Amino acid sequence: MSKPKKVVLAYSGGLDTSIILKWLQEEKGCEVVTFTADLGQGEELEPARRKAEAAGVKEIFIDDLREEFVRDFVFPMFRANALYEGLYLLGTSIARPLISKRQIEIAHQVGADAVCHGATGKGNDQVRFELAYYALDPEIKVIAPWREWDLNSRNKLIEYAEKHDIEIAKDKRGEAPFSVDANLLHTSSEGKVLEDPYQEAPEFIYQRTVSPEDAPDKATFIEVGFERGDAVSIDGVDMSPATILTKLNELGGANGIGRLDLLENRYVGMKSRGVYETPGGTILLMAHRGIEQITMDKGASHLKDELMPKYAELIYNGYWYSPEREMLQAAIDKSQELVTGSVRLKLYKGNVDIVGRKSPYSLYSQEHVTFEEDDVYDQADAGGFIKINALRLRLLKARDRKAGKNI
Amino acid sequence: MSKPKKVVLAYSGGLDTSIILKWLQEEKGCEVVTFTADLGQGEELEPARRKAEAAGVKEIFIDDLREEFVRDFVFPMFRANALYEGLYLLGTSIARPLISKRQIEIAHQVGADAVCHGATGKGNDQVRFELAYYALDPEIKVIAPWREWDLNSRNKLIEYAEKHDIEIAKDKRGEAPFSVDANLLHTSSEGKVLEDPYQEAPEFIYQRTVSPEDAPDKATFIEVGFERGDAVSIDGVDMSPATILTKLNELGGANGIGRLDLLENRYVGMKSRGVYETPGGTILLMAHRGIEQITMDKGASHLKDELMPKYAELIYNGYWYSPEREMLQAAIDKSQELVTGSVRLKLYKGNVDIVGRKSPYSLYSQEHVTFEEDDVYDQADAGGFIKINALRLRLLKARDRKAGKNI
Amino acid sequence: MSKPKKVVLAYSGGLDTSIILKWLQEEKGCEVVTFTADLGQGEELEPARRKAEAAGVKEIFIDDLREEFVRDFVFPMFRANALYEGLYLLGTSIARPLISKRQIEIAHQVGADAVCHGATGKGNDQVRFELAYYALDPEIKVIAPWREWDLNSRNKLIEYAEKHDIEIAKDKRGEAPFSVDANLLHTSSEGKVLEDPYQEAPEFIYQRTVSPEDAPDKATFIEVGFERGDAVSIDGVDMSPATILTKLNELGGANGIGRLDLLENRYVGMKSRGVYETPGGTILLMAHRGIEQITMDKGASHLKDELMPKYAELIYNGYWYSPEREMLQAAIDKSQELVTGSVRLKLYKGNVDIVGRKSPYSLYSQEHVTFEEDDVYDQADAGGFIKINALRLRLLKARDRKAGKNI
Amino acid sequence: MSKPKKVVLAYSGGLDTSIILKWLQEEKGCEVVTFTADLGQGEELEPARRKAEAAGVKEIFIDDLREEFVRDFVFPMFRANALYEGLYLLGTSIARPLISKRQIEIAHQVGADAVCHGATGKGNDQVRFELAYYALDPEIKVIAPWREWDLNSRNKLIEYAEKHDIEIAKDKRGEAPFSVDANLLHTSSEGKVLEDPYQEAPEFIYQRTVSPEDAPDKATFIEVGFERGDAVSIDGVDMSPATILTKLNELGGANGIGRLDLLENRYVGMKSRGVYETPGGTILLMAHRGIEQITMDKGASHLKDELMPKYAELIYNGYWYSPEREMLQAAIDKSQELVTGSVRLKLYKGNVDIVGRKSPYSLYSQEHVTFEEDDVYDQADAGGFIKINALRLRLLKARDRKAGKNI
Repeated sequence: MSKPKKVVLAYSGGLDTSIILKWLQEEKGCEVVTFTADLGQGEELEPARRKAEAAGVKEIFIDDLREEFVRDFVFPMFRANALYEGLYLLGTSIARPLISKRQIEIAHQVGADAVCHGATGKGNDQVRFELAYYALDPEIKVIAPWREWDLNSRNKLIEYAEKHDIEIAKDKRGEAPFSVDANLLHTSSEGKVLEDPYQEAPEFIYQRTVSPEDAPDKATFIEVGFERGDAVSIDGVDMSPATILTKLNELGGANGIGRLDLLENRYVGMKSRGVYETPGGTILLMAHRGIEQITMDKGASHLKDELMPKYAELIYNGYWYSPEREMLQAAIDKSQELVTGSVRLKLYKGNVDIVGRKSPYSLYSQEHVTFEEDDVYDQADAGGFIKINALRLRLLKARDRKAGKNI
Repeated sequence: MSKPKKVVLAYSGGLDTSIILKWLQEEKGCEVVTFTADLGQGEELEPARRKAEAAGVKEIFIDDLREEFVRDFVFPMFRANALYEGLYLLGTSIARPLISKRQIEIAHQVGADAVCHGATGKGNDQVRFELAYYALDPEIKVIAPWREWDLNSRNKLIEYAEKHDIEIAKDKRGEAPFSVDANLLHTSSEGKVLEDPYQEAPEFIYQRTVSPEDAPDKATFIEVGFERGDAVSIDGVDMSPATILTKLNELGGANGIGRLDLLENRYVGMKSRGVYETPGGTILLMAHRGIEQITMDKGASHLKDELMPKYAELIYNGYWYSPEREMLQAAIDKSQELVTGSVRLKLYKGNVDIVGRKSPYSLYSQEHVTFEEDDVYDQADAGGFIKINALRLRLLKARDRKAGKNI
Repeated sequence: MSKPKKVVLAYSGGLDTSIILKWLQEEKGCEVVTFTADLGQGEELEPARRKAEAAGVKEIFIDDLREEFVRDFVFPMFRANALYEGLYLLGTSIARPLISKRQIEIAHQVGADAVCHGATGKGNDQVRFELAYYALDPEIKVIAPWREWDLNSRNKLIEYAEKHDIEIAKDKRGEAPFSVDANLLHTSSEGKVLEDPYQEAPEFIYQRTVSPEDAPDKATFIEVGFERGDAVSIDGVDMSPATILTKLNELGGANGIGRLDLLENRYVGMKSRGVYETPGGTILLMAHRGIEQITMDKGASHLKDELMPKYAELIYNGYWYSPEREMLQAAIDKSQELVTGSVRLKLYKGNVDIVGRKSPYSLYSQEHVTFEEDDVYDQADAGGFIKINALRLRLLKARDRKAGKNI
Repeated sequence: MSKPKKVVLAYSGGLDTSIILKWLQEEKGCEVVTFTADLGQGEELEPARRKAEAAGVKEIFIDDLREEFVRDFVFPMFRANALYEGLYLLGTSIARPLISKRQIEIAHQVGADAVCHGATGKGNDQVRFELAYYALDPEIKVIAPWREWDLNSRNKLIEYAEKHDIEIAKDKRGEAPFSVDANLLHTSSEGKVLEDPYQEAPEFIYQRTVSPEDAPDKATFIEVGFERGDAVSIDGVDMSPATILTKLNELGGANGIGRLDLLENRYVGMKSRGVYETPGGTILLMAHRGIEQITMDKGASHLKDELMPKYAELIYNGYWYSPEREMLQAAIDKSQELVTGSVRLKLYKGNVDIVGRKSPYSLYSQEHVTFEEDDVYDQADAGGFIKINALRLRLLKARDRKAGKNI
């Protein structure tokens, strides 16, 4: 790889990416363009602008991507009922492709030849960022400082920051007790205090949900409206995608919903323990299941179930921009054409339960409307159905007996 | 099918199967052998004996199958983390193969040429019973009265019962507001008051769980021990399979755990709404996931996730005794060899959360024990890993660009 | 089912469907509309008109569906490289949905309330016809004479024909030595002389291929052009879908290509032995594989391979008009966008071999064009790739050793 | 990685591995142990001993692994009917795990701390060797000279060889027109003259098969006997696994069977073109399909078809020693218990066709033996089977119509 000249950095304004910014300028001799995205992580972004300016950055991009994030990434993923390893709602994984896409767009716009991220060398995020970079621009240069530099301890980082007059927030001087990633879909926490998987995660880990114990003693009931597989309203009020997710987050957070303590398999081969809070997403998944229950045919539904683990794995591993993810998405989206209606949910101290579903396209009560009862289902037919399905099993048993293989 | 002479009836002692008993004797002219199984449904079985005797039955079988049920059916299924349509723990489905197996064994023992069950003609259970019958004895004759007789209303049944001096419990005279099936794993309710899927299920439906609202205000913590994928102890006390499930049912039921309101797709083609209570099973599933998290390799784990929907569908549809279920079981069982250790769980008002897991065969902390850190994971390797995985995506993008297909 | 009044019969003009025609008129008291499709079966259709007229039929439909058959059914299926049980190209299965669709269209056009087919009660075709009928018109009445009447022997049929003055071709008086189905994609033969699966199929079975022994001693080379996954030309000459398949049939038939002797599993539960001749289809499958080899990314290609068996099974079983087939089709079609180029094939005495492929969208040589060699592939990266992929296996082995599980 | 002291080299005796031997001694300062395996590649092995001795090697291992290769690797793989990308019989892939296993065993025996192979840095074999090494010994050191040294041209290699008095065969001085790998299962050729995928492979590429044109004008018929899924005899003569494969290779090679020109996707991300000759394996695959056709139930057979692509991919990618391959193998082996009987095949000028199959455990003719015809299959049952299977499609269509979604 020839030396990069101009680099678009995914810049949060925090200590680590501020050090990276300086390091790119000093050690790499690059012109740096910063890109800061609002994905609903709940931090002010203007400090990032100020700090970038202070570091002499001339081209600063600060974008509110919340609507795009939910509409084009979160919602398509929820159409699949995606869960990684049975439990994880993929809150971090699904944000990376959008950040990467915007970085590459900015690189093209400003004529940069490189992009840079602040993910470490042992995690999944480096893979997700870089696979997306390469998939969108095969000739882009990628800089991953954590795999390259020797600032591999807190002390060295602090020393570097002090040497280069980088602002250090008070609470960043010491080693953090755990690390956090957040966006509109979730907050994840990992490291240090969570490293013993037999020890319960301490309550102070949690950022955006109250504990079920502290949630209201009375249930909250809501109704989520869907069109073509996407949530479009809460309690009859139409809202934009990001607004819906924000509202569901409030509801979920207040009711202690969406906490997950997971020991998971990273793409890079080791197990790690994370604590996730996905309050709105947890509600949304259940609501989506509810609307599919009443509008989706069994054949479509079971095929979706079979495809889901692979789809979730692709997103977890960073293959959002891959032909196979797009093929699965085409299949999934095809199934959502009439996934329209609404679902009533009960939120109570960590629980989210479907308590009702209805749809103009219901497949449930249709039979009573359209058919004479005897036309639609003759019980005698069930006998034939069973006999034909049993035929191969009977032939098999007769054969097995003859072969001396028996109960 | 030639006329059956001697039939083994799956007999609960209730009104419906008592009518069937008489009908088999009177209309079919069969000698009837009754078989009543204790699968933990929580009913006394001796009345069944008394009633059978009163009906003139000479061969009466009453078997406690609880241990066999949990050991050979429930536990193997839970090794797969099986969920039908993402949510249902298959509590009814998994009991049918055992009842059928025992019926066929008894038929062979007493020289009966037929078996009979009391499942209706619109449900899944008829399929599950009969596929199992045929798979275990290809020449057995199967009698399914509900598909055959004309006693197709409550009034006609009551009339038939009165005419033949069949005991009618007080509460069985009228139409029941819903129908129930129960065994050690779950209780299911369906019909009548549940038929509108938009209406919340009334509280009186629930048989073995308190509502989360009525559960204790303080969490209960338990530790479930596993060996080779099966639960073997609670809080360090070794127990038999059925004892463990019984104990977990108590814990779950008291903490409002395991309720599910589901609109599902039946094998026979229509949707139906059921309410399930699976208190112990819900805890067991989460515990099993916890122990797999720490002991199971990613490759095995993800393959299990991909196979699971098909496995669950096979059990739901009644194919327990099929070569394909046995093949999947062989794969699943192979994966459980070192799924040994224990999982700490928090039970609180409907929630069951993993809060800790440990194992002598942990794959989590192993790296620190066995390898020098630099040997086990060199961060520079991650760069190569990403570059090679990205290669096809880069070639693809370069091609797509050339083809004019672009972002 | 109430009595049908007017029925659209899938009518070949042969003895069996002529008897059905009469039987519908006489025994069922229906007005009969005949529908005869040209799917390239190679029979004259005008006799069907004459015979229908002679039987008093007033509405006679004779349609040339060859182009629609290949364009909308055969080609989409070949995009999937579909093979049932590893070997069968689904020549009969894929024709049924089109015939059914046209029958339902005609029923709507002429105001018929029923449709009728001449498939027997032990085969797959009854299922394929009827699933398609019901999927396209849930209220249509379906008549399947072979499952209903008592004309269940050759003698009874002949007798019925004679009694009703139905024309009997000379060679139809006796029992045929095997039965045949044909269309533009294939000819299938089964029954009688083929019933012993250990006996080689006699040469006289084959209808449209010479034996490899009788094929030319010199190879024929052709080049098949593709656009978006569909064949569009042979040796540079653009042709319509049906013309291409016709031409490939000639080439394949003359070179002894496409014979298959198969013992297969029917949907209705028993095994049967069939002999298939699919000369053009066999060439087309190989050509399509060739063009995918050079234009399709690995991720897309492997996903297609994994989905294919289910897709093929759906078509074999008669679920063309099902949401799950349409979902899979959406995924498959998505993958074909740049499957464009051409493939050179060698045809020789039963063999069809890819000998060359090229494409404007090649993914094969692209690397040399776009990248500096060191940019696109650094051999050192492979080391990192392997190390990271090996990590879980190393952790596993270390764990297994500790557990006393070892080589 | 600390410096290796003693290394087990996979040594062929050819120029490249002789250079590696010297390079390990000179540049790496290692003691070298050579291991040469007879996997049926058809080369004399004694020259390897002589050359190793001449290079001062003290511990020389030369093992005949042919029986183990076929029995424990080839046969288990063929039970799965494994094909990579629809066509490739995995001849190279399946040999690597055995070589690696033996290398690790020798390393343990002689106290070596490292292993070394001669595979290049752009291919699949490096991955297969090294994943197997690591899976079998997580602490082993792996040396891959081609990724490390600077002898990256023919000239440099020759120069190095001359400088160190390494014997150079006459025909190895110049650049070879293509490279070859061989074992008892197949010969593969790639590179140089094969690099343009549009050009037909020249006839001189082929090493062990005559061209179909040069094969006998008269077909050869053979009968292959199977027990539990493995071939055990040819024409009634029992043979060991390696003897059977050797014999099938002769038969296939003489009849022009088993040539394949493939453009495939490598695990490391690029496409490559290879020409494979797998004469015996091609016959064996077809024979195995034949015996499964008559002995295997549909459910088992279709599950195998669905699992196969993943299984083949695992072997291609080098994951023989992985839990997921072992899980799939457990499922596959479970299915083979009664895959016993024999298959008649016709071999003729490149074609291998099943012409007959029989088995004591046949599922084909069983029905006539065991059941009264009316008991085993009542045609009326088919009507019920269809009606129940159609139900969901009818409900769906009625719903779609109501929703205005129509044909």
